[in-house]
Amino acid sequence: MIRGDGELKEGKGPVRTGVTVILPRGRENRDPVYAGWFSLNGNGEMTGTTWVEESGFLEGPVGLTNTHSVGTVRDSIIAWQVKQKALKQPWSLPVVAETWDGYLNDINGFHVKQEDVFAALNAARSGPVAEGNTGGGTGMVCYGFKGGTGTASRVLSGDDGAYTVGVLVQCNCGRRPQLMIAGVPVGKEIPEGKAQAGLPGSESQGDVGSIIIVVATDAPLLPHQLKRLARRASLGLARTGSVSGNSSGDIFVAFSTANPYADAPPGPNVVRTVSNERITPLFAATVEATEEAIVNAMVGAKTMTGVDGHTVVALPHEDLQRVLKKYHR
Amino acid sequence: MIRGDGELKEGKGPVRTGVTVILPRGRENRDPVYAGWFSLNGNGEMTGTTWVEESGFLEGPVGLTNTHSVGTVRDSIIAWQVKQKALKQPWSLPVVAETWDGYLNDINGFHVKQEDVFAALNAARSGPVAEGNTGGGTGMVCYGFKGGTGTASRVLSGDDGAYTVGVLVQCNCGRRPQLMIAGVPVGKEIPEGKAQAGLPGSESQGDVGSIIIVVATDAPLLPHQLKRLARRASLGLARTGSVSGNSSGDIFVAFSTANPYADAPPGPNVVRTVSNERITPLFAATVEATEEAIVNAMVGAKTMTGVDGHTVVALPHEDLQRVLKKYHR
Amino acid sequence: MIRGDGELKEGKGPVRTGVTVILPRGRENRDPVYAGWFSLNGNGEMTGTTWVEESGFLEGPVGLTNTHSVGTVRDSIIAWQVKQKALKQPWSLPVVAETWDGYLNDINGFHVKQEDVFAALNAARSGPVAEGNTGGGTGMVCYGFKGGTGTASRVLSGDDGAYTVGVLVQCNCGRRPQLMIAGVPVGKEIPEGKAQAGLPGSESQGDVGSIIIVVATDAPLLPHQLKRLARRASLGLARTGSVSGNSSGDIFVAFSTANPYADAPPGPNVVRTVSNERITPLFAATVEATEEAIVNAMVGAKTMTGVDGHTVVALPHEDLQRVLKKYHR
Amino acid sequence: MIRGDGELKEGKGPVRTGVTVILPRGRENRDPVYAGWFSLNGNGEMTGTTWVEESGFLEGPVGLTNTHSVGTVRDSIIAWQVKQKALKQPWSLPVVAETWDGYLNDINGFHVKQEDVFAALNAARSGPVAEGNTGGGTGMVCYGFKGGTGTASRVLSGDDGAYTVGVLVQCNCGRRPQLMIAGVPVGKEIPEGKAQAGLPGSESQGDVGSIIIVVATDAPLLPHQLKRLARRASLGLARTGSVSGNSSGDIFVAFSTANPYADAPPGPNVVRTVSNERITPLFAATVEATEEAIVNAMVGAKTMTGVDGHTVVALPHEDLQRVLKKYHR
Repeated sequence: MIRGDGELKEGKGPVRTGVTVILPRGRENRDPVYAGWFSLNGNGEMTGTTWVEESGFLEGPVGLTNTHSVGTVRDSIIAWQVKQKALKQPWSLPVVAETWDGYLNDINGFHVKQEDVFAALNAARSGPVAEGNTGGGTGMVCYGFKGGTGTASRVLSGDDGAYTVGVLVQCNCGRRPQLMIAGVPVGKEIPEGKAQAGLPGSESQGDVGSIIIVVATDAPLLPHQLKRLARRASLGLARTGSVSGNSSGDIFVAFSTANPYADAPPGPNVVRTVSNERITPLFAATVEATEEAIVNAMVGAKTMTGVDGHTVVALPHEDLQRVLKKYHR
Repeated sequence: MIRGDGELKEGKGPVRTGVTVILPRGRENRDPVYAGWFSLNGNGEMTGTTWVEESGFLEGPVGLTNTHSVGTVRDSIIAWQVKQKALKQPWSLPVVAETWDGYLNDINGFHVKQEDVFAALNAARSGPVAEGNTGGGTGMVCYGFKGGTGTASRVLSGDDGAYTVGVLVQCNCGRRPQLMIAGVPVGKEIPEGKAQAGLPGSESQGDVGSIIIVVATDAPLLPHQLKRLARRASLGLARTGSVSGNSSGDIFVAFSTANPYADAPPGPNVVRTVSNERITPLFAATVEATEEAIVNAMVGAKTMTGVDGHTVVALPHEDLQRVLKKYHR
Repeated sequence: MIRGDGELKEGKGPVRTGVTVILPRGRENRDPVYAGWFSLNGNGEMTGTTWVEESGFLEGPVGLTNTHSVGTVRDSIIAWQVKQKALKQPWSLPVVAETWDGYLNDINGFHVKQEDVFAALNAARSGPVAEGNTGGGTGMVCYGFKGGTGTASRVLSGDDGAYTVGVLVQCNCGRRPQLMIAGVPVGKEIPEGKAQAGLPGSESQGDVGSIIIVVATDAPLLPHQLKRLARRASLGLARTGSVSGNSSGDIFVAFSTANPYADAPPGPNVVRTVSNERITPLFAATVEATEEAIVNAMVGAKTMTGVDGHTVVALPHEDLQRVLKKYHR
Repeated sequence: MIRGDGELKEGKGPVRTGVTVILPRGRENRDPVYAGWFSLNGNGEMTGTTWVEESGFLEGPVGLTNTHSVGTVRDSIIAWQVKQKALKQPWSLPVVAETWDGYLNDINGFHVKQEDVFAALNAARSGPVAEGNTGGGTGMVCYGFKGGTGTASRVLSGDDGAYTVGVLVQCNCGRRPQLMIAGVPVGKEIPEGKAQAGLPGSESQGDVGSIIIVVATDAPLLPHQLKRLARRASLGLARTGSVSGNSSGDIFVAFSTANPYADAPPGPNVVRTVSNERITPLFAATVEATEEAIVNAMVGAKTMTGVDGHTVVALPHEDLQRVLKKYHR
C-alpha cells in the first residue's frame, strides 16, 4: 500500500485543504483488492461504495479530500487511470471520501484541481505516512483540537497468523468534552478557551465534522469478512469518545492486499480465507489501531489559522501527559 | 442437496400443512455451505439470516413450513442436531422460513410437531422433488390457484462452466389477475369463479401470501456473490406477475455446494470463486429457473379443500394450454 | 418536480452525452424531500446515497450523466447551490448517477462542464419531459436499440388515494435477445443485423450498460416506505427482460414531494404516512410505470452515429407493431 | 413499556435460564410501535427483524431467552396473541432474541416451555426491572463475571425535548481482560482465578457470548431514525471493552412509544418526527445508557453454579471500588 499527498496551489481564500490517495497495491499493480465498507453515520460521501458492495472489490486508488472536492478528485482519478491505461472495466468507479474543512479552509473556493490529484497519485510511495496537517487532512478539527491524518497498525502474533492491520484516519470529528484517550476524559480536563468559542463542535447540540477510516490488512479476508473489519472501526472511534453525531460522516472502508488476481477472467480463481473462528484477533487489531490512529492525528497536528481568522490549537502534549498521569496512566 | 417432506399427524382442524427440509450437503455431511440472502418484501420470517449475513455460511438444514410453526421447526432442527452431534458451534442458528397457509390450514392449531420435523430430516433423500401440495407447500395458494412446492433448474453451457442452478419455491403469492406465464396474461384469461370470492389475494388491495425461494448451485460462489443470486430471484418472480405486495413475505436464500471446508479451523482455507465477469449466466439461470419453478408449483398442485370449507382449485391444464396458444406460444 | 437538460458544447470526439437534472420541489424551493434508494446491481455510481439512507432525505437536485462526468456534475451542483445560497447544511452531498455512453460518446474526453450543469439547472421547468436522445440519456443503448431518457406515470384511483407515481429512466441496459415488451419476446423477433456485431451487450456473456431509475410520487411516504418503492423498480425492469447482468449499474432512487418541512428545526415536525396496508397500489404503479418508461425511452430515441463510426439504430416502430400483433396484443 | 420474567419449572439438568418479555405499550394496547434494528456481529438470532426492517413497525412483544429456546418463545408468543385475539395481521412475526447460557444452563434440555412464556407475558408490569440473574438473563456470563439483565436510562434536558431513552441489555459478552468501566481497565485489575480456567471467553481466541440490547424511547422517531439509535448501542458496548468477537451475537433493536396508530388503516396517518439536527442528544443518551446498563447487569448479578459444576463469580463490588479509586474515579 502506498499513499501520496498532493501539494496545492494557492487560491483566493486561505487554502487549508488537499488530497490524500491510497494505492492498495502500489502505482503499477492495478489488480483489484477485496474490500468491504460500513457507514456508522452517513452525513458524508464515499463514492464507489455501491460497486464495492456488489463486486467485493476495490478496483483503484482511494482518494480523501474535502467535502466539496470529492467530484474533482473522483473524475481526476479516472482521467489519471485513462492516461495510465489502468481501467479494469471500460469505465471506472473510484472510491473517494471526504471530511469538511470549512472552518479553516475556503472550501467553496474549490481549490483542489486535477493537477493536485495527479501530483498526489504520482508522488505516492511506501513508507512512513506524514500525519497531522497533511493531504486531505490539512484543515481538519478533531475533538476541538487540530486534527488531520493519523495512522497506526498492529501485527498479530504468529499463532494468530502474523497478519498486519493498518489504519489511516482523516479525523475531523467530535467535541472537546467528549475526548477520551486511553479511557481518560482528556477533553474535560483541557477545556476550551475563549478563543475556541465559535469552533465547530463546541455547541451543545453535538458533533460537527466527520471521520473517514481506511483499514488495510494483508490477512486473506473475503469481502464479507472485510465488511466486518470496517464495522469494527466504529468501536475504536467510540473509545475516543464520539457518539457519532448527526452531522458526522463516519464512513469506513477495509481492504486486503492478499488474494492477487481474485477476479481475473476467465476464472474460477483460487483465493484464501481466514476461518471465521480465527478472525477475532483481526477485529481487536482494528479497534486498537483505529483508537491509536485518531490520537496520532491529533498528536501529529500543528496549530493552524485559516479563513476568517479562525485558529484551531493543537493538542498540547504537556497537558496531555499531565492528565494521563493524573488518571494513573 | 437432499430434501425431505415430513408426514403430519392429524389435529383438530383440517391439517393442510407440513414441513420441507433441505440439507445442502446431505444428512451426513455437516460441512457448512457459503450462502447469501435477500428480502424483496419482508412480511415474513426467515430465521438465521443474521448469521448467514455475518458469517457467509449456512451451517445446517433449511426448513420451510407455515408461518406459525417456524419456531417449532427451528428448535426441532436444533434438537435433531444435538442428537446427531452435528452442531458446528456450541449453539445452532437454523434457517427456517415460512409462508401462511391459514386459508386452507388450521394454522392456529400449531399442528407441526418435533416428530414431523425429525421425520422430514430423516426421510430426506436425493432425487426428484415432489411438487405441489407437499411438505411446507401443502396448503399454499398461488395467484388464486392452488400453489405449493415447485422446482426447476438450469445447466450452464460448458463455456460458462457447466454449473447447475436449482431453485425450490414454496409459492403462496399473488392474485389471479396478475398471473403471467411466458409473458402471457394467463390470470386475466382464466378469471376467478364465484367460488373464489373469499380467496386471499382476490381483493383489489393487493397480494395475500408470500414466496420463499431457495437457490442452490454447484458454482463456486462466495457469500457476496450468492447474495447477488438471491436478489435475482426477484426478477424471476416479477416475470410471473407479482408486484411483491405489502403482505408478501418474499424472502430468498442462495447457497453453493462448492468450496468444502471453507471455514474449517485453523485455516486459512483455500476456496474458489467465479470471476464476476463470468457470473451473468448464473444470474440468467436463476431468473429462468425461478420463473419455471413457480409455474411448476401450480402445475403440480391439486385442488384442495381445507378449513371452513375453503376450496382452492388447481390451475386447469387445458385452459392454460388454450391461453398460451391464443398468445402464440 | 422540474427537470432540465443541459446543452453541451462540442469537444474533440463526437460528443454524445449530457446531463439531466431533477429538482424535486422546483428551483426555488430547497425544502428536502423524503427519499429511499436501492441497488439491484451496483456496477455504477449514485453519489449521495449514504446520506439519503442515513437522514431519510434528498436535499437537492438529482443529476444524471455519463459515468466519467459524475464528479463534475456533483461538484457543479454544489457550486450552483453555493451561488444560490441553497445549502441546507454548511456542506452538500448531491445525488448524481450515471450510465456509460462510451460506445457512442467520447466519454474519456470529459465533455460535461460546470457550465453545462448550470445550464441544465437553470433551464429546468415543469411539464412534459423530452424523451430518447436527450440530457444524460443522449448516448445510451437499450436492449441493442438506441435508448436514453424515458418517462411514464400512473395515477391511483380515488379509493387508493389518487396519488401519482412518476418514473424517469436513463436506460442503457440489456441485450437484444432479452427484450420483452408487454410479455412479447420482441428482441428475438427483431434480431440484430450485421452492423450491430460490435454493439455492447451483443455478446453472449451478458449485459453491458445500466439503468438509473428515479421514482417520484406525491404520496406521503416515509423514507423506509420510499425504499420499498425504489426496490419495486426492479420488477418493472424485469418485465422488459433484463437479468441485471454483472456490468449493469442498476440503481434506483424514490422520493416523495409530500411532507414539506419534515426536517425543519427545531421540530418535532408533523408528517403524514400511508398505512402499509394501503401501499400495494403504489408498488403496482411503480412496476407498471417503470416498464412503460423503459419502452418509452426506446420509442422516443432516434438512430445515432457516434465515436469510431458506431451506429445504434432506433427501435423500428413498424416492426414493433407487427411483432406485438403476432403475439395477440 | 412493561416487562415480565417467567418462572421456570425444573428439568433434568440444572436449569439456569428463563425468558424476559417486553411489551412496548403494555399488555392491553397492541398498537404497533415504530422500530429499527442493527446487527454489530450477527452470531445470534433475533427473529422478526425482516418485517421490522420492511414495515418500520414492531407489532408485538419482544422476547429474550436462551439460544435454543427462541423457537418455543416465538411460537408461544403467537399462541398467546391468538388467545388474546391480538394479531395485527392474520399472522404474527414476533421479535425474539437470545444469548447462549450453556456454560451454566442445561441448554440442550430445552427447558423453556409455552407455559413459561405465557407466565412472563401475563406477569409483565411497569416499574423497576429486576437485574442480574433474572428472566432470559439468568445464566449469562459477562466479561468473565456473572452477567444477565441490566437496565439504565437517560432523560434529556427540556431544551433537548425532555425525552427518555431506556436501555435493557441481556449481557453475555466479553472476556475478563477486556472489561473497562468508566474508562478504567477493571478486567485487567481483577484477573481471573484458577477456578475460572474453563470459562467461556477466557481463551485467547476471543469472545464467547453475546449481548442483546433493546433501546426504548418516547421521542417521536421514525423507523430510519430508530435504526440510527440501535446502531449507537455499539458505541456504548465499545466503551465497556468489547471488540464484538466472532462468536458474539450483538444484535440491537430500538423502538419508540410515540406516534400511536401510525399504521392504522385506512390512513394516511399523522405522525411526528424529531428533526435530524436535534437527534444527537438521543444518540448520546443511547451510548451512555447502554454503557451503564451493561455495568448494572454485572453489578446486579449474583455468583451462580450450574451445569457440570461450573461456577461464575459476581463482580466483587469492593474490588471494583478499589480499582476505580486507583484510577482517580
